[in-house]
Amino acid sequence: MILSARKKTPPPRTIGLITDFGLTDPYVGQVKAVLARKAPKCPVVDISHHVAPFNVAQAGFFLAASYEHFPNDAVILSVVDPGVGTDRRIVCLEIGNRRLVAPDNGLLTLALNRAWSEVRAYDLSRAMDAPKKVSHTFHARDVFAPLAAWLALGGGLEGFGRELDPADLVTQTWSRPEIGDHRVLGHVVHIDRFGNCVLNLEAGCLGAPRGLRMESPSGGPLAYAAKYADMPEGEPGLLEGSQGFLELAVNQRSAAKRFGLSMGDAVEMSWEA
Amino acid sequence: MILSARKKTPPPRTIGLITDFGLTDPYVGQVKAVLARKAPKCPVVDISHHVAPFNVAQAGFFLAASYEHFPNDAVILSVVDPGVGTDRRIVCLEIGNRRLVAPDNGLLTLALNRAWSEVRAYDLSRAMDAPKKVSHTFHARDVFAPLAAWLALGGGLEGFGRELDPADLVTQTWSRPEIGDHRVLGHVVHIDRFGNCVLNLEAGCLGAPRGLRMESPSGGPLAYAAKYADMPEGEPGLLEGSQGFLELAVNQRSAAKRFGLSMGDAVEMSWEA
Amino acid sequence: MILSARKKTPPPRTIGLITDFGLTDPYVGQVKAVLARKAPKCPVVDISHHVAPFNVAQAGFFLAASYEHFPNDAVILSVVDPGVGTDRRIVCLEIGNRRLVAPDNGLLTLALNRAWSEVRAYDLSRAMDAPKKVSHTFHARDVFAPLAAWLALGGGLEGFGRELDPADLVTQTWSRPEIGDHRVLGHVVHIDRFGNCVLNLEAGCLGAPRGLRMESPSGGPLAYAAKYADMPEGEPGLLEGSQGFLELAVNQRSAAKRFGLSMGDAVEMSWEA
Repeated sequence: MILSARKKTPPPRTIGLITDFGLTDPYVGQVKAVLARKAPKCPVVDISHHVAPFNVAQAGFFLAASYEHFPNDAVILSVVDPGVGTDRRIVCLEIGNRRLVAPDNGLLTLALNRAWSEVRAYDLSRAMDAPKKVSHTFHARDVFAPLAAWLALGGGLEGFGRELDPADLVTQTWSRPEIGDHRVLGHVVHIDRFGNCVLNLEAGCLGAPRGLRMESPSGGPLAYAAKYADMPEGEPGLLEGSQGFLELAVNQRSAAKRFGLSMGDAVEMSWEA
Repeated sequence: MILSARKKTPPPRTIGLITDFGLTDPYVGQVKAVLARKAPKCPVVDISHHVAPFNVAQAGFFLAASYEHFPNDAVILSVVDPGVGTDRRIVCLEIGNRRLVAPDNGLLTLALNRAWSEVRAYDLSRAMDAPKKVSHTFHARDVFAPLAAWLALGGGLEGFGRELDPADLVTQTWSRPEIGDHRVLGHVVHIDRFGNCVLNLEAGCLGAPRGLRMESPSGGPLAYAAKYADMPEGEPGLLEGSQGFLELAVNQRSAAKRFGLSMGDAVEMSWEA
Repeated sequence: MILSARKKTPPPRTIGLITDFGLTDPYVGQVKAVLARKAPKCPVVDISHHVAPFNVAQAGFFLAASYEHFPNDAVILSVVDPGVGTDRRIVCLEIGNRRLVAPDNGLLTLALNRAWSEVRAYDLSRAMDAPKKVSHTFHARDVFAPLAAWLALGGGLEGFGRELDPADLVTQTWSRPEIGDHRVLGHVVHIDRFGNCVLNLEAGCLGAPRGLRMESPSGGPLAYAAKYADMPEGEPGLLEGSQGFLELAVNQRSAAKRFGLSMGDAVEMSWEA
């Protein structure tokens, strides 16, 4: 049949964006202008452009907390890229049918830890060769955006990229928490506007620990709670937040102030046998 | 005829958004990711995500000032929700063919006051039952976004919700100004970046008052003007702003500083018989 | 042939936006609501809404640096409009098939200087007559947005506007740098978050100058570099940035602090014969 021989155009995929560019400079607008030029029918969703400058861990948390809410064929581009201009790789994690693109600097590892379905990783550094004119400092616009547009239009990873072992992606100290029998060492990957300190620990990864304590000079007992309302007022606790990660929280107060924590800080906790 | 019997798909409706989430955390992005998943063809327009935290009055003003500019079948979702996790209702105001969805906490009342055409109100709290997995703290993403997507795709209010008397919606002290013969008591619902103080008083609701005065220790005579240029420089006045509400303004100065006003403050004014 | 006589609907054009409205007030949302109402299929791309209030030069730089990245039939609306309410003209620059719309206050001149292809200018002030209800203070929503929607749907400039000599557009002191034989006088049109000072000088306009110096009490020798990595650490230089303009930069430091520069300041440089 002639009709069935027609090549079907795949439906346009949604493109998600995470950067540390802020919204004052015209950089995000130029990235989106390229997407509008190359993939005009693909909806674009901003996750955040206010990642702290060069904070790969925070970007990784934003991505891991958000990708599952996107359409199941979305392309999510995350560019926090202290290594722009060096020969760092450009990589893609395929989780189910979603595609997460980023520089290979650890940004993808929190999402990788969380992935529950088929995961494949690809080296897409060849994208550096494609554009005619690449600026030295703005690969998000000149390399990543054309790549994301091409993927969102259905471009195939296998023909273009080289498959990697996901374990070969660059990792950082916060990429994987150290979880022992009754002790865990995590890191603060985000502090929200209420002062809650999100850790690189997935909700549920400690079970429902009893006798939980924070091990530090300013530490002490921590309640464990599934929601704010279950926490004693003014007392600190470890909370299963809406983002799917554990958060240090103080009901109606700032946990960051209470514990003197900043983004990137290590947090050690213990619990009873 | 067979062709005419086909059920026509209604055109995708525009979705407007108002929240107090800010744009740093990934919360707005996750709401939009759900909208892209559930209603991929519906355009999304951000009205503001910088409502002061929990400031229902300011969100109500942003909504009342904005909804008429949207397409006449738009769905506008406003989530400023101090009562998340309690049993507060989810309600919808249908003004003409536009649908305004919000928690039932007073957010809709300034829009209701302004509505000039057919208005109906619905209790849509049943939406709480629909999603499989609802977080305790993030109903905007887990309950309101799927609901807005469903409405934007043409979901019917009458089958899903229970009609309410609009007068039964929750009201607040600022929900309805007290307008007397020559005296009015209003509230500051927004202070813009120039220091203009928007009141919960619709433009024109006082007629063109003569001998207008602000009744407070720091008060005094107020000019009444349709535009800034008509106000004496450096003198205070009451202005019919572009948002359709009356604003206390001082030409080229900050009215908030001049009168020591903050959001939520009461303002009493009088005029001649 | 009947089929070929059908008038083809032109494809919806992308609309870019630049304003100084910020994202807290609902003003940008109302502009976009009008665009969604009048041109629902046209994608909208925000370039920046954080132009410093009334800073026409910064808006002009954002526009000049961004328009070439847009689809080649895009409509870009820039509203930084200190003259709103006066009889300033509304103008449009047509560069190739892109259309740049703005108040006639100098905003378009940096883009005009850069344009490499056919350029035409039009007076579109007639748009002031069209809307039924125009606020005195919010022409972006009430005049410019309907105009941009109409252009994005394929509205013709020649029937609607009056063609102008591009040289008749309003200019400002920073509109055209004074480039002499071995000396140039430029202006700072933007300071980015790293403290780099973007000048109104196109990348390459000085060739590759040797013995470059900044002529001011706090001045001195400047390196000339195509990228940051080529600049001696801690030393100042003139850089061909990713935005297509020359930037005063200090590797890993703030050039604005080093030279005590603010937006709008004049900068004089000299080089060897």
